[in-house]
Amino acid sequence: MNTPHATSATGAESDARTTLASLDTPCLVVDAVRMERNIARLRERLDKLGVSFRPHLKTAKSVDVSRRVMMALHGPATVSTLLEAEIFAQAGITDLTYAVGIAPDKIARIAALRRAGVDIAVVVDSCEQAVAVAAGGDPAAPIPVLIEIDCDGHRSGVAPDDRALLIEIATALGSGGGATLRGVLTHAGESYSARAPSELEAAAEQERAAVVQAAEILRGAGFPVSVVSVGSTPTAHFAKNLDGVTEVRAGVFVFFDLVQAGIGACTVDDIALSVLTTVIGHQKAKGWTIVDAGWMAMSRDRGTASQAVDQGYGVVCDIHGRPLEDLIVIGANQEHGIIAPRGGTSGAGLDFPIGTRLRILPNHACATGAQHDRYHVVEGTGDAVVATWPRFSGW
Amino acid sequence: MNTPHATSATGAESDARTTLASLDTPCLVVDAVRMERNIARLRERLDKLGVSFRPHLKTAKSVDVSRRVMMALHGPATVSTLLEAEIFAQAGITDLTYAVGIAPDKIARIAALRRAGVDIAVVVDSCEQAVAVAAGGDPAAPIPVLIEIDCDGHRSGVAPDDRALLIEIATALGSGGGATLRGVLTHAGESYSARAPSELEAAAEQERAAVVQAAEILRGAGFPVSVVSVGSTPTAHFAKNLDGVTEVRAGVFVFFDLVQAGIGACTVDDIALSVLTTVIGHQKAKGWTIVDAGWMAMSRDRGTASQAVDQGYGVVCDIHGRPLEDLIVIGANQEHGIIAPRGGTSGAGLDFPIGTRLRILPNHACATGAQHDRYHVVEGTGDAVVATWPRFSGW
Repeated sequence: MNTPHATSATGAESDARTTLASLDTPCLVVDAVRMERNIARLRERLDKLGVSFRPHLKTAKSVDVSRRVMMALHGPATVSTLLEAEIFAQAGITDLTYAVGIAPDKIARIAALRRAGVDIAVVVDSCEQAVAVAAGGDPAAPIPVLIEIDCDGHRSGVAPDDRALLIEIATALGSGGGATLRGVLTHAGESYSARAPSELEAAAEQERAAVVQAAEILRGAGFPVSVVSVGSTPTAHFAKNLDGVTEVRAGVFVFFDLVQAGIGACTVDDIALSVLTTVIGHQKAKGWTIVDAGWMAMSRDRGTASQAVDQGYGVVCDIHGRPLEDLIVIGANQEHGIIAPRGGTSGAGLDFPIGTRLRILPNHACATGAQHDRYHVVEGTGDAVVATWPRFSGW
Repeated sequence: MNTPHATSATGAESDARTTLASLDTPCLVVDAVRMERNIARLRERLDKLGVSFRPHLKTAKSVDVSRRVMMALHGPATVSTLLEAEIFAQAGITDLTYAVGIAPDKIARIAALRRAGVDIAVVVDSCEQAVAVAAGGDPAAPIPVLIEIDCDGHRSGVAPDDRALLIEIATALGSGGGATLRGVLTHAGESYSARAPSELEAAAEQERAAVVQAAEILRGAGFPVSVVSVGSTPTAHFAKNLDGVTEVRAGVFVFFDLVQAGIGACTVDDIALSVLTTVIGHQKAKGWTIVDAGWMAMSRDRGTASQAVDQGYGVVCDIHGRPLEDLIVIGANQEHGIIAPRGGTSGAGLDFPIGTRLRILPNHACATGAQHDRYHVVEGTGDAVVATWPRFSGW
C-alpha cells in the first residue's frame, strides 16, 4: 500500500524519500512541470481573447490542482457533481457553476450550499426545471440560473434560435421568486470529433455564435444576461475570437491526454498524467509484455479508437515519462495490461525484465484519473515524488 | 449526498426510511434476491461437479458480499489486488489466492500478510518470479505458489505442454527455501468471446484439459501438485466435467451483467446490479431522454459492442428494475447519459418527466461497480433500501 494520504483535502504532502521506483503500482503520476505549462498556455490565450476563465474542476477532482488552475482562491470554477461543489466549497471555493442540468431532487443541496455562502449557479434547458428552481430557491437569495444552449447537437440544451422556448424558460425563472436568470451556457462537445485545425476553429466559432445568438434573443426580450459562457478544451485552444462571450470553461487541458493529442489540441509531450506500472510477465513468442496496469488502473476509455491513430489503452513510456517508440497497451483485463508494438509488429526486440517500471499515457485523463484516489507528483523527468495530492470520487 | 456509510468494512446498515426514491443519484443498487439466486445456482453446479469453490472477490470488493458468496467465513477466496487481500484479511478471510502474476516489489506485502496469519498464495509464470518469491519468502513458512497456465492465449501463463519451463519453474521455487509449489492455475479469458453453448462447453473443456495436463507433467517429474484451479464465470456455468480439477474460481457471476447475458451465461433477469439515475432533460425532436448517469456512473465499459446485440452503455429499466422494451443508453458524457431506443427508432413515444427515476443494467459489473463506493441493497422489485454495503477501490 502506498503511504496513506491525508483524508482532508487541504494540501500537499512531501516525502523526500519517495521516488517513482519506491511507489506501489499501479498508481497515478502527475508531472507538475507539464501541468503548469498547460495552465499557463491556456491562461495566456484567454487573456489575449479578453475573456475570463472558469476552469472545470471535474478532470482532477483535487483541491491541490484546483488551486493551481484557478485565477483566485475562491474561484471562479465549474463542477460536474454536487459532491465536487461541496468539497470545493469546504476548501473555500465559493464561485461555482454546476454545469449539468439540474434535477429537482438536487435543488435542496444547492440551496444548502447557498445558505453556507457559496455563490453556485445551476443550468436548465426546460420550463419544468426553471419552475422547480424558482420554487426551490430562497426568494431572499435566489438561485442564479444559466440556460443551456445546444450549439452542436451533442447532448442537452435549447436550440440557439428557439426564441419561444428561451423566453418561456426566462419567464418561468421569474415566476416563483427563488430563481434569477444569470445568463446562457453551452458546451461544444462535438469538437472532440474534429480532426483538423480548420474544423476546430469552425467548432469554436459555432459555439460562440450559438450562445451569443441566444443571449441576444433574451436581451432583446428584456431579460438581463450577464454571463455568456462557452467551454471545451478543443475550442478553447482554437477559438479565433470570442466576441460576446464573457467566460470560458475547460477542464482536461490541465493534464491533456491522447484523445486531445489526436485532435491536435496538444502534443504527446504535453500530457501531464500517466499511470506508473510494473512488468509482471511476458509472452515472448507473441512479443507481449504483461504489466500490472489493467483497465482498473487505465479505465475502459478507448477514445482514440475512433481517431486516426488508435493508441489502445495508452502509450507506453519509460519511468521518466519518455514515450517508447510505437509501444502501446494493446489489451487490458482488470489488473493486467498487455504491451506490444502498435500495429502488431512482432515486438521481438522488446525485453523489459520483470519488475521494470514503465508509465502509460491515458486516452482520457478524466476517466483514468477517476480510477485512483491520489496523484503522485513529479517534476519533469525527475524520479522524486515531491508531493501527494488526494483525489476524490462520487456524487 | 447519500447518507454517509460506515468507513469500516464490517457490516451492513439498514435505514427503514431509505427508498429508491429518496437516494441521491446516480448510485449503485444491488438486488439481493437475484444475487442470492446467482450464488445458489453456481454452488449447486459446482457441488454436482465435485469441486470446491474459491470465489473471486474482485467484482464486488465488499466484505458484505464476500460473506454471502464464500463457503465459510475464512474463505477460500480469490483476489486481484493486494489491497483486496489486506482488507479481506482484516475482515477474517484468511484463505486467499492472489491471482495476478506476482511482481518482486509486491512480495514484501505478501510476506507481511503471511506473518499476520493469512494463508495467501501467489501466481508465477516465469523462473524470474519463482526465484524472487523463493528469495523473498520466509523459509520457516514458505509462500505457496501456483504456476499459471495459458489455456487459450488470452494473456499470461506457461503453455500447458511446455514441460521444460514447468519443471524449471518448479525447480526454481525450491531453490531459496522461501517458496513452495502448491499447484497450477488457469483462466479461460477467451470464453468471454464465446457465442454459443457449444463454444462455452469447449472452452471449459480446453481450460480443464490444459491445467490438468500441466499438473500431470509436474507430478510425473516428482513435484507435488495439490491445487488444480480453473476459473471464469462462463466456463464455470458450462463445464460438463471437471475431472482432475480441485477448485473453481469465478467472480462476476454474483451480479452478472449484459456481457454475460450476451454470452448466454445468464439472462437479463438475473442481473443483480444496476445504477439508479434521474431524468434531467430531453431532446424531444431526437427522441432522447437525458439522465444523470454518464460514463462516470456506468464506466466506459462497452463490452457488448462486439456482441450480437450492442446494449450501448446499458439497458434501461424502470425504478423497480424491470427492463423497458428496447431502451438503452446510446451515449454517455462524464455526467450525462442519453437514453433512446436501441437501433435508433424514433423514441417519439417516450415521455419520462424530469425527475423520473430509472435503473440501468451495466455492460460489465466489475467496471461499473468500481465507479462507486457503496451498494444500496433492495430485495426484488421492492422500493425499500434494506442495507448499505461499503465498497472499496485501489491497490
